[in-house]
Amino acid sequence: MGTAHFVYPGAVHTRLHHSLGATHLMGQALTILRKKGVAITDEECVAAQQAILLHDIGHGPFSHALEHTIATGVTHEEISHKIMERLNDLYDGKLETAISIFDNKYPKDFLHQLVSSQLDMDRMDYLNRDSFYSGVSEGVIGYDRILQMLTVSGGGVVVEEKGIHSVEKFIVARRLMYWQVYLHKTVLGTEQLIINILLRAKQLAQQGKELFATPAFRFFLYEQISAADFSSDRKILDLFCLLDDADISASIKVWALHEDEVLSTLCNMILDRNLYKVKLSTQPLEEEYEQLKNKALASGKIKEEDFPFYLFSGSTSNSTYNKDDDRINILMKSGELVNISNVDNALITPSLTVPVRKYYICYSRHLLN
Amino acid sequence: MGTAHFVYPGAVHTRLHHSLGATHLMGQALTILRKKGVAITDEECVAAQQAILLHDIGHGPFSHALEHTIATGVTHEEISHKIMERLNDLYDGKLETAISIFDNKYPKDFLHQLVSSQLDMDRMDYLNRDSFYSGVSEGVIGYDRILQMLTVSGGGVVVEEKGIHSVEKFIVARRLMYWQVYLHKTVLGTEQLIINILLRAKQLAQQGKELFATPAFRFFLYEQISAADFSSDRKILDLFCLLDDADISASIKVWALHEDEVLSTLCNMILDRNLYKVKLSTQPLEEEYEQLKNKALASGKIKEEDFPFYLFSGSTSNSTYNKDDDRINILMKSGELVNISNVDNALITPSLTVPVRKYYICYSRHLLN
Amino acid sequence: MGTAHFVYPGAVHTRLHHSLGATHLMGQALTILRKKGVAITDEECVAAQQAILLHDIGHGPFSHALEHTIATGVTHEEISHKIMERLNDLYDGKLETAISIFDNKYPKDFLHQLVSSQLDMDRMDYLNRDSFYSGVSEGVIGYDRILQMLTVSGGGVVVEEKGIHSVEKFIVARRLMYWQVYLHKTVLGTEQLIINILLRAKQLAQQGKELFATPAFRFFLYEQISAADFSSDRKILDLFCLLDDADISASIKVWALHEDEVLSTLCNMILDRNLYKVKLSTQPLEEEYEQLKNKALASGKIKEEDFPFYLFSGSTSNSTYNKDDDRINILMKSGELVNISNVDNALITPSLTVPVRKYYICYSRHLLN
Amino acid sequence: MGTAHFVYPGAVHTRLHHSLGATHLMGQALTILRKKGVAITDEECVAAQQAILLHDIGHGPFSHALEHTIATGVTHEEISHKIMERLNDLYDGKLETAISIFDNKYPKDFLHQLVSSQLDMDRMDYLNRDSFYSGVSEGVIGYDRILQMLTVSGGGVVVEEKGIHSVEKFIVARRLMYWQVYLHKTVLGTEQLIINILLRAKQLAQQGKELFATPAFRFFLYEQISAADFSSDRKILDLFCLLDDADISASIKVWALHEDEVLSTLCNMILDRNLYKVKLSTQPLEEEYEQLKNKALASGKIKEEDFPFYLFSGSTSNSTYNKDDDRINILMKSGELVNISNVDNALITPSLTVPVRKYYICYSRHLLN
Repeated sequence: MGTAHFVYPGAVHTRLHHSLGATHLMGQALTILRKKGVAITDEECVAAQQAILLHDIGHGPFSHALEHTIATGVTHEEISHKIMERLNDLYDGKLETAISIFDNKYPKDFLHQLVSSQLDMDRMDYLNRDSFYSGVSEGVIGYDRILQMLTVSGGGVVVEEKGIHSVEKFIVARRLMYWQVYLHKTVLGTEQLIINILLRAKQLAQQGKELFATPAFRFFLYEQISAADFSSDRKILDLFCLLDDADISASIKVWALHEDEVLSTLCNMILDRNLYKVKLSTQPLEEEYEQLKNKALASGKIKEEDFPFYLFSGSTSNSTYNKDDDRINILMKSGELVNISNVDNALITPSLTVPVRKYYICYSRHLLN
Repeated sequence: MGTAHFVYPGAVHTRLHHSLGATHLMGQALTILRKKGVAITDEECVAAQQAILLHDIGHGPFSHALEHTIATGVTHEEISHKIMERLNDLYDGKLETAISIFDNKYPKDFLHQLVSSQLDMDRMDYLNRDSFYSGVSEGVIGYDRILQMLTVSGGGVVVEEKGIHSVEKFIVARRLMYWQVYLHKTVLGTEQLIINILLRAKQLAQQGKELFATPAFRFFLYEQISAADFSSDRKILDLFCLLDDADISASIKVWALHEDEVLSTLCNMILDRNLYKVKLSTQPLEEEYEQLKNKALASGKIKEEDFPFYLFSGSTSNSTYNKDDDRINILMKSGELVNISNVDNALITPSLTVPVRKYYICYSRHLLN
Repeated sequence: MGTAHFVYPGAVHTRLHHSLGATHLMGQALTILRKKGVAITDEECVAAQQAILLHDIGHGPFSHALEHTIATGVTHEEISHKIMERLNDLYDGKLETAISIFDNKYPKDFLHQLVSSQLDMDRMDYLNRDSFYSGVSEGVIGYDRILQMLTVSGGGVVVEEKGIHSVEKFIVARRLMYWQVYLHKTVLGTEQLIINILLRAKQLAQQGKELFATPAFRFFLYEQISAADFSSDRKILDLFCLLDDADISASIKVWALHEDEVLSTLCNMILDRNLYKVKLSTQPLEEEYEQLKNKALASGKIKEEDFPFYLFSGSTSNSTYNKDDDRINILMKSGELVNISNVDNALITPSLTVPVRKYYICYSRHLLN
Repeated sequence: MGTAHFVYPGAVHTRLHHSLGATHLMGQALTILRKKGVAITDEECVAAQQAILLHDIGHGPFSHALEHTIATGVTHEEISHKIMERLNDLYDGKLETAISIFDNKYPKDFLHQLVSSQLDMDRMDYLNRDSFYSGVSEGVIGYDRILQMLTVSGGGVVVEEKGIHSVEKFIVARRLMYWQVYLHKTVLGTEQLIINILLRAKQLAQQGKELFATPAFRFFLYEQISAADFSSDRKILDLFCLLDDADISASIKVWALHEDEVLSTLCNMILDRNLYKVKLSTQPLEEEYEQLKNKALASGKIKEEDFPFYLFSGSTSNSTYNKDDDRINILMKSGELVNISNVDNALITPSLTVPVRKYYICYSRHLLN
């Protein structure tokens, strides 16, 4: 959950827990589908569980926060894929099918959908787990009931009609977790703070300034690594795999004493929990941004070029249900397949398919004092 | 939960649990409102807790199922009111304010709303309690967070803007519990079975037939009691208060051997868990009803006059959110009060305010064999 | 849990829940034993589950409280046995093996031990269930871990050495539940009150006095039924099976208005929750008993012959671990079998095998006012 | 919980959680004692909560594991004391009373006992918390009931007689958690592995070898710091406070490539989860130790001086109840104070006061292959 423990201190569960949980749910889902007569071989069972076990293995430190900061233009899915390839070599091709499922190239589409889709085992696990550890009880979903209602029709994973209320509840829980936890304004602000620390450190590294870091972290600070580099140089993936939160945390504590004022200020902000102040709104906040900017510039405290580290705006959006991308099909008793947003009397109406955009401003408190 | 334990065997919690729970939540809600500066006297605190503690005391055996069968045209609220009056006499007027709050005659409207409204302590307690004991985890609501978000504005209970997702979740949980638990087809069918047993017993009593019953239950079987009788004859309320599920259960076991075939058949159906078969549909089921009726009549097994006890149809409806009756007002950060169905980007759109009607047929399995 | 809900209002779970739970645990235990190589046929699996499902079916109303009051000298195990025989006839001998296991006549002793012994599935279920519903969290046992540690050695169920702390914890939890819940002084007093109501009603019935009761309950009130009668007259078991708590509750409400003062007083005591005052001590309470008796007799309020219904003493005992009867064998890593009370450094020392006796006085509060 | 998550992956809760939880329980305990008439001023309430909030603040990385390795001869209590002194200066003496309570110099002894004694808020919190997060449900204690039973007598914290079974259960839960979690053989082995890594790193540092480390960690590696140094040099505490698990983890990952074979081997063992093999026994394991040693020496794989890092033995002990140190006094109904091990029929008999010693051998698996 990245930086969510800054708001919900209990949320210290790890990616290992989540991966094991999702693998467990995959096992249950496959058993249920087989009992309903869906043809799944033993080998496919193992492969689908390998695929979900490893689906997040490409995540770097602090999860999504640093996804595009440590290395540019490489998604965690691409890195997961590369690590799976490496493991596949190591284990004489035993992950061939798992990789094919992960990449959505395996003929039985529904196996990939169990790994990655609106109703995948990933979401089934993390919504309940994050709800449990954060104490936001409203994120609880009836994952066991949804699993029982899954079936395969037209080659894809669908939900039996009598599971419709459970799916509605799942979508609503996800909506709630987004606005209340994942996009909580303090969570968002802390994430931005960590990103800015990394960006500043990279700026300094480019200028040849000395920065404390573990050798692996140093490599990604001082080199500009792109997706192409990962492919051409085997060593880069090795180094990436050595990184975890400890590399970043240990450096931040050291950088708090760095001579660069911006870097040390940002690092002290996180160590002292003196986080950005965040304003969130459904309307653009340009006017307030300008006012704050002028006020801060007038105060003369901050050099103009350092400005973006102390005051910035942005926006984030989330749709409750995207009827094209998310497409959850319900298998009606009549045998018909219907997108849940088209089912009569459903909660998930077309109006919910429009994404909601929220605008934010973040600024350092010392800017205005 | 009436007959819900026929489907969810764990659902054996009692009205006492619920009343104590709702009283506990009322105490919490009042403390929160006072902290926010809402003027509530100590006397009003006690009275609001008395009112919620006693709000359901007028329920007869098997809850809603027999509400209009044991006595005609008297609601459980009216009986609660009468019992509260009786207690008020007994305790020298100490429930005066509680009764006034219960009857919605007390000047501070919001106190009545905490006892009875869309966001009352009754629902806050029963949704979570029923969810817990039935094992339908999806009914869980974040009651503690909703309580924290309550405030009073314009004289009424409203919810602060940042509580909006919790309220959405609450409405969705209620919707789910309705369709999945309270109106579950087996629950509905069992309820109808108990009602029919009582109706048949009353028919026989009117014809002067002898029926085993406790004296109190006998009174309500052989006399036709209306709301007016409760007022004119003090003794009737005394007798009503003696009734509980045990009176009905003990009689049903004896009636299973009664010479009247309809009565004994219905009683044996419930004792042997040979319940009505129930069909539920969003479309009227007239055609199927006619087919079943003709088939059954043709078989000659059943006398035409006994028919309605073995095959009948009906309908039930529930709206996710009734924007007039349910009216949940959100206090926006701007200070404006907005009905939740009119809030931008809310889940509770006007389309959800139309009630959903479901049609059902119930019939005894032996009818067609 | 008989009358425990008078102290722990949540304790309203039913014998059905317990029987299903114990059957579920039996299934798990058998699976675990089979995985360890213990020879158990499919037929034995079904039979052991039937035996545990039905092990308590002979319990009459209010559980242990009325065990020897409704019928004299018949244990609930004997009645369970008789009902199982009846079901065996009905299902063409399909319960033959189950009955043999239940009666401890089946060659594989360990199957009976899973149904009835210190570590049986009965205790595994009820300790956790009663702990959960009463809210006495300290009764929680690690049943899943104990099940994992079970094995068969020397023909009997034993526990692997590494499960020893879990078994200690189980014995301590049982000890705690006994003194804190099952033998809680108010629970004990309420049980005695119900017994006395039944005893008084039977006295009156013997004298030919009229008493309201369902036909089945009337039979056991007016006739003196012994174990022999159950065997000679098939009808008696039929009548016994018709009884449940509702028969007793419905009668108690009617008897509260009976002309016999003792009966009506006792019934009103339970309806008004004006229970016996109970004193519990590790020392005999004869002196206090005599003082109370003299004081009450002097007051002249009560006829001497009615006395035992209003003031009486008794004792109850429970041993934490009875090393002969309870015998829990631990399979040491060395292969040796050792009674847990003889294991080095174990918590369960021989001193704990001496039963603790507690003495009590119960008396009606009105006796002394 | 130090290294417990190597066995119980869920056990990732933090010292912050524990400190907040213990502070919460302290608040409850003080409220209960005040309601019973124990004189406690508002200032003492705040101070006792400050003392428990900060009681563990002197713990370094990996909790107890590295307590005497990072700095020699300084307990975490001494460091907690020093940090509290520092905070006291910072906040103008506002922690004066808290420090006096923490140091057991405050006249009201019972306040210190709530912070540190057999029944302190520390244990009340960590037993339940560790039980919850590790999933070892048997560690659950009825902390709420124990708190309700606390009172003060003879100047000390005591437990009312009716709480005796809850205290027995608490002692048994603690015993179980020790043997099953805190001293679990894999937990113990992992702890020894981390200690050995640190010891080896310090050896190399003493020899002037270069080791990657954060500046703060480097200081404690290259300098030999004693309790006296903490007092004479203010800066040392500042550096100690900068240390957390991340400093150690980040170094271990780098050291896995160090040229020193012992250091890199040990670091790779923990990174690859190729932990020591551990044998635990109630008997000394000298013979097995000698056999293993000879076998390993014969293989010639390991230099004799590196030996202690790959094979070593030791012992650990724990007493269920130490009747002198642990002294839990029960306030009998008679008014008498009795040590729980002297209460009649108690579970906690004098025989349980003898500590149990367990012997262990740890060795690296590669030693023998």
